[in-house]
Amino acid sequence: MNSTQPQHTNRQYEEELRGLRAGLIKMGGLVESQIAEAIGALVDRDSAHARAVIARDAEVNRMDIETDQRCLNLLALHQPAASDLRFITTGLKTTTDLERIGDNAVNICERALELNEEAQLKPYIDIPRMASIAQSMVKDSLDAFMRNDTALAEQVIARDDEVDQLNYQIYRELLSFMAEDPHTITVATRVLFVSKYLERIADHATNIAEMVVFMVDGKNIKHMDPTHG
Amino acid sequence: MNSTQPQHTNRQYEEELRGLRAGLIKMGGLVESQIAEAIGALVDRDSAHARAVIARDAEVNRMDIETDQRCLNLLALHQPAASDLRFITTGLKTTTDLERIGDNAVNICERALELNEEAQLKPYIDIPRMASIAQSMVKDSLDAFMRNDTALAEQVIARDDEVDQLNYQIYRELLSFMAEDPHTITVATRVLFVSKYLERIADHATNIAEMVVFMVDGKNIKHMDPTHG
Repeated sequence: MNSTQPQHTNRQYEEELRGLRAGLIKMGGLVESQIAEAIGALVDRDSAHARAVIARDAEVNRMDIETDQRCLNLLALHQPAASDLRFITTGLKTTTDLERIGDNAVNICERALELNEEAQLKPYIDIPRMASIAQSMVKDSLDAFMRNDTALAEQVIARDDEVDQLNYQIYRELLSFMAEDPHTITVATRVLFVSKYLERIADHATNIAEMVVFMVDGKNIKHMDPTHG
Repeated sequence: MNSTQPQHTNRQYEEELRGLRAGLIKMGGLVESQIAEAIGALVDRDSAHARAVIARDAEVNRMDIETDQRCLNLLALHQPAASDLRFITTGLKTTTDLERIGDNAVNICERALELNEEAQLKPYIDIPRMASIAQSMVKDSLDAFMRNDTALAEQVIARDDEVDQLNYQIYRELLSFMAEDPHTITVATRVLFVSKYLERIADHATNIAEMVVFMVDGKNIKHMDPTHG
């Protein structure tokens, strides 16, 4: 147990806290754009674009490590209390979700690369819709976090059902494609995986939003629905 | 910033730290058994058993909240330094993985309930094998965490490839089932999802193992492979 006094000034502390906020916003912005670009690469059947998104994941990972380090430093050197402690520990848990959202964008690109080797099943309509909702959920969950905005966080959580419904709809549609023409099975299962990745991205945003409500209200609304995730 | 001295004794602190360890071990044990029971319910086509596993997820969620609260208390009241701080923050991130492993066990049971409505494709061979590896990875990642055992953590990380290979093998096999007989498509996609859930469970265990290596060595081996997760 460390019982020495904090060795840093308040000003340094405030600066590091601002650095953490900026780091989280930057990481959130990057993973949002990774989602958008992954779906762009998929829809345009652009393998070079997909590879660029995959390559950029290294930056997401770097930010994950860096942001966690900022959290650890703040905890170790400044012994923050009450609301700051809650903000920092929420940050520490949020990076895990953001990093995995980035992984899911990579997974979408991997499926896109495979899909580009084969004929397209049909133009994508629901997948981009689902992606755009998932992306907005990521953005809003982070905004809610930065602004202590529980109303916005609750909106994010509500929107998760919409994504689940789209995922189910896509699943049913792909099943009928496969049943009608077994030649489409390989392609259809890959599209099915893309839909699952988007569903998972929405789940991660929902998790962030739930943590924001807990951070602000101390009210635990996690696990109302045990099945998402 | 809280510059007051810790108000609790060393003894209380040690006790709370032991409580955190015990809580993590208990939560780990519960999610391990949830995996085993979910696969048992699937293989035995036992819907009552599947429902019992789903119901028990509430306990996983309770433990998640409780364990996080222990971490927050330790951070708020005792301002732990160095290795303890690292242990506690790793605990805080590990609960997220454990809780999601529990969600994946629930997802397996949901698919089991659906699968029990239809004829079985074939006896399960690879799925229980994959489950047993994934379960051992969860157990070992937690043991590695509790014992600061990086060698064991590295073994867990290595085993993830085996799970990925089994997942791919199952995918190929299910594709050929579907192609040969389109009537199997619905059932086959559900089994495919079960395989994906197990792969995710192994990914979560791998994440825990990577955090253990970081906690002990300060060496960041996360993100060597951006695609798992």
